[in-house]
Amino acid sequence: MTTSDLPTAVPPDAILEAALYAEDLDAAERFYGDLLGLERLVRVGERHVFYRVGDGVLLIFNPSETSKPPNNPRLPVPPHGARGPGHFCFAVAASALDDWCARLRAAGVGIEADFHWPNGARSIYFRDPAENSIEMAEPRLWAR
Amino acid sequence: MTTSDLPTAVPPDAILEAALYAEDLDAAERFYGDLLGLERLVRVGERHVFYRVGDGVLLIFNPSETSKPPNNPRLPVPPHGARGPGHFCFAVAASALDDWCARLRAAGVGIEADFHWPNGARSIYFRDPAENSIEMAEPRLWAR
Repeated sequence: MTTSDLPTAVPPDAILEAALYAEDLDAAERFYGDLLGLERLVRVGERHVFYRVGDGVLLIFNPSETSKPPNNPRLPVPPHGARGPGHFCFAVAASALDDWCARLRAAGVGIEADFHWPNGARSIYFRDPAENSIEMAEPRLWAR
Repeated sequence: MTTSDLPTAVPPDAILEAALYAEDLDAAERFYGDLLGLERLVRVGERHVFYRVGDGVLLIFNPSETSKPPNNPRLPVPPHGARGPGHFCFAVAASALDDWCARLRAAGVGIEADFHWPNGARSIYFRDPAENSIEMAEPRLWAR
């Protein structure tokens, strides 16, 4: 069967959730909540902590917990759980990037890279406590 | 120094990029491009393939390549690269979820879970070719 023979469906039109992994959720809360100032939606023990980012949600999962099979028959969430440094990028206005560099550095978080892409958009990169590579970029990086 | 002593910065207001990892980018293209119907933005060899999803971008990276140090001094993108099943969720209208179940099943992709959260929003889960856990959920799952 080729793709053109398949039943059709309207393509997804937004990112609802993106995930990163971290073993230490307390450290993740200090970073994403206190330092980055994101709105915390929910924390469940040592399994996960979720943050609202605009219309989407950034999920921070402890892979030691999420890789276990689900145990609630009403919410059979499939297991997952990656190891090693992931990547995530926030959309940040150009005018705020210098502020973020100052705030991050003052908190002892190094700016690992800071450059302009060929289309002129600026990105800065730093690490979260779990060594994930976090980027803040002007949204025009991917403008249509 | 406490967080309240730090320089301030406007919190990020959108997810610009979310990342998943896959060694086989040809298989990823068949899945995300042909089957899910996402708009491909760019593919660079065996390193990555990127797709537009609304105002954001889904990045599929080959961790064997992205874990290498950058070699372009003008674009010093920090290395990253996770292993094991990650997670990503598309926002999909309730009315389209049955269509997606039909299309995925017809392509031989099993629906691993299909349930309603306590707030009534429905989610379906399936696996991409790299075993990442992919979800499609009604956006009201995280409505304010």
